Amino acid sequence: MARPTPLSGFPELLPAARVVERQVIDSLSRTFELHGFANIETRAVEPLDRLAKGAEIDKEIYALRRVQAGEGEGDSGLALHFDLTVPFARYVLENAGKLDFPFRRYQIQPAWRGERPQEGRYRQFTQADVDIVGQDELPFHHDVEVMRVMVDALDALPVPPLSFQFNNRKLIQGFYRGLGLPDLTAAIRTIDKLDKLPADTVAELLVSDAGATAEQAARCLELATIRVPDTSFVEQVRALGVEDDLLDEGLAELAAVVEGCSAGTRRHVTVEANLRIARGLDYYTGTVVEIFMAGYERLKSVGGGGRYDALASDGRATYPGVGVSFGVSRSLIPLLADGVLSASRSVPSAVLVALVDEEGRRASNALADQLRANGVPCEVAASPQKFGKQIRYAERRGIPYVLFPGPDGAAEVKDIRSGEQTAVDPATWTPPAPDLKPTIKEQLS
Amino acid sequence: MARPTPLSGFPELLPAARVVERQVIDSLSRTFELHGFANIETRAVEPLDRLAKGAEIDKEIYALRRVQAGEGEGDSGLALHFDLTVPFARYVLENAGKLDFPFRRYQIQPAWRGERPQEGRYRQFTQADVDIVGQDELPFHHDVEVMRVMVDALDALPVPPLSFQFNNRKLIQGFYRGLGLPDLTAAIRTIDKLDKLPADTVAELLVSDAGATAEQAARCLELATIRVPDTSFVEQVRALGVEDDLLDEGLAELAAVVEGCSAGTRRHVTVEANLRIARGLDYYTGTVVEIFMAGYERLKSVGGGGRYDALASDGRATYPGVGVSFGVSRSLIPLLADGVLSASRSVPSAVLVALVDEEGRRASNALADQLRANGVPCEVAASPQKFGKQIRYAERRGIPYVLFPGPDGAAEVKDIRSGEQTAVDPATWTPPAPDLKPTIKEQLS
Repeated sequence: MARPTPLSGFPELLPAARVVERQVIDSLSRTFELHGFANIETRAVEPLDRLAKGAEIDKEIYALRRVQAGEGEGDSGLALHFDLTVPFARYVLENAGKLDFPFRRYQIQPAWRGERPQEGRYRQFTQADVDIVGQDELPFHHDVEVMRVMVDALDALPVPPLSFQFNNRKLIQGFYRGLGLPDLTAAIRTIDKLDKLPADTVAELLVSDAGATAEQAARCLELATIRVPDTSFVEQVRALGVEDDLLDEGLAELAAVVEGCSAGTRRHVTVEANLRIARGLDYYTGTVVEIFMAGYERLKSVGGGGRYDALASDGRATYPGVGVSFGVSRSLIPLLADGVLSASRSVPSAVLVALVDEEGRRASNALADQLRANGVPCEVAASPQKFGKQIRYAERRGIPYVLFPGPDGAAEVKDIRSGEQTAVDPATWTPPAPDLKPTIKEQLS
Repeated sequence: MARPTPLSGFPELLPAARVVERQVIDSLSRTFELHGFANIETRAVEPLDRLAKGAEIDKEIYALRRVQAGEGEGDSGLALHFDLTVPFARYVLENAGKLDFPFRRYQIQPAWRGERPQEGRYRQFTQADVDIVGQDELPFHHDVEVMRVMVDALDALPVPPLSFQFNNRKLIQGFYRGLGLPDLTAAIRTIDKLDKLPADTVAELLVSDAGATAEQAARCLELATIRVPDTSFVEQVRALGVEDDLLDEGLAELAAVVEGCSAGTRRHVTVEANLRIARGLDYYTGTVVEIFMAGYERLKSVGGGGRYDALASDGRATYPGVGVSFGVSRSLIPLLADGVLSASRSVPSAVLVALVDEEGRRASNALADQLRANGVPCEVAASPQKFGKQIRYAERRGIPYVLFPGPDGAAEVKDIRSGEQTAVDPATWTPPAPDLKPTIKEQLS
């Protein structure tokens, strides 16, 4: 077999990098569960006709066919999901009778998109989604709840500073309606281009595509430039002099989200109201959010989400929801590639149990079992090389301790960082807690 | 959207069942890591030409094509992996220069096969693999090591009793060679049919298909009926009077594996030498094992593996390995369906923080944050219903405690199983450790 080469768009991690990814996923899970969110996993596939809806994403869908299938059953009618929202909506409908609402769930799984690979964009990528879904109704306070959970979860991660930028669709729509714009949807779609086009061009497009007057377009841009780290946006919007009930509702909701997510002390997550955030997707109906990572603005958002009043509907009930997604692969793979994140070792072993000679393997195994009984990950040296070589083996893998078997079940342990060697009782000795598991090192540039 | 129905062969778990699966996976991971095995994940896809080798499995492979792809790029040349061994072999070759050997890894991921679904056989299924791979050489003691790891890992699971049934290819081949059989491969393939065909028929096939004499066929069957829970098989085989160097080697290896895996006290895993275990796959060269679950013999084996002297080779080096795989979906989904395993609750929350009225939400949230700071998963009641309704909400989800906010940050907590209600300090109170996480209940029939 020739040496294989990596597949573009399908990144794989070496063991040390995988340590980082696993600890990040464990940390996210821990926070989600502290807030009462249950984990689910959905199958990797959906019926193709549930995924392909004539949208732009369709051409990125991977459909499944059976190799060598007989009698026309080659096409399975199935395709790999391209996000976790469509499968979750289907799961809620399929199991509605067996779920308790409001249903809080988190899901950390891969999804697949056949798009052109680039930094932060992969053909297989893992994302972490939290959502709360109600049956027929879902009070607004859940918007604050779910956004706070993600703020807490990301604040606990060893990553560069993250910014949550919130807006509210009711605020935008109410403002545009109060302003008298004729086509709200076209206006939102146009404003959403502000991150790609200059303000002047967007103003022109508002006139040509969304039917705005030049005066209305100017006001839309004024709204979109409001960006503050607190609730002072309420006064700034009021000062623009537009009156509308929906605008009032949107202002109150956005203020509650910004206030709720700012409460408490944060390590590196900041919260802003940024009134140009629109998110193109049509199904958002209230709160919207995009998450950015400092120094990695080129990735665009590393997460986002919002409120959708009809995640799913089966004719008997509708299921409103609110949720937010974090791109695990999108953020971690660039951080790992840049050396911002690394693990202290590539193996779980905290201790290498040395081997005196092949006859001593049983004794070394017994020592290792004593350590394991106390929760200490360890391995026994593969061969009875000179101790110097065994120590270098541990060093190469980042294993911090080598345990040398002594007579009558005694042992000595060497911390190979300090070189210090001491006699220990292997029945009770454990390394200090910080050495038990590999740790993540964060090297900010 | 019409209510969707489940897809045959793609089982999904409700949240409580997923609690069981996650705890099983966490428990497996913990044991693997205590033994120094590093976790990796490989991408879900491989180039189709690496998977399809003209074998029986080929027609079960799911290949990927892009929907609406232009210019003839519909077929991606990729397919979903059908096990974790082929991707692991490719990963080792691709990263050989960056891995330290012997390389111990575990991998717990889904795989896909388009086969006809039945109990224990799914189109998407999760398996847990542990392997040790060397570069050019891998001493035999690693066979004992990797099998012991899986014995330890499965012994810690809340499942019915499991039996590890070991054999050794060298033992079989040496015996057949010493006996003078003309076609060893055909003989092994034929003996492997003993679980489907009566002994007489297998004896006839040994004569007709493998070129054995009636006398040789009888000896092959005698060997295959040896099944003991210790190393006494060595004497029994010797008593059959066949002499061969490879047989001696196989006997010594099998004795070492049986002895090594029997050491220590086991909760529910037993170990046997069963000399009819052959495993059809051609790449095994020494130790082989199949794992069976008591009461679920109809699933056939729930795991298996063995020694392969050439997992992979790139022209410069070969990579011998030894490993064993456990079918997580194959064993758990029937156990969950039969009610043998269930979780004490469907949500992570150990506590529901009650809500006096909507104005009190901030106070209840603050109480919840105090609990979370002490590592207690909790949620705040969705609406300020009567306390009786809030208690029933907790009861329905299996949440054991309800915390009622009192004046000035005080609180009372009710254990809704006993009905006992006591005043507590929410800054320091935590539920007893067994209530912190959902527990798995094992209901053996």
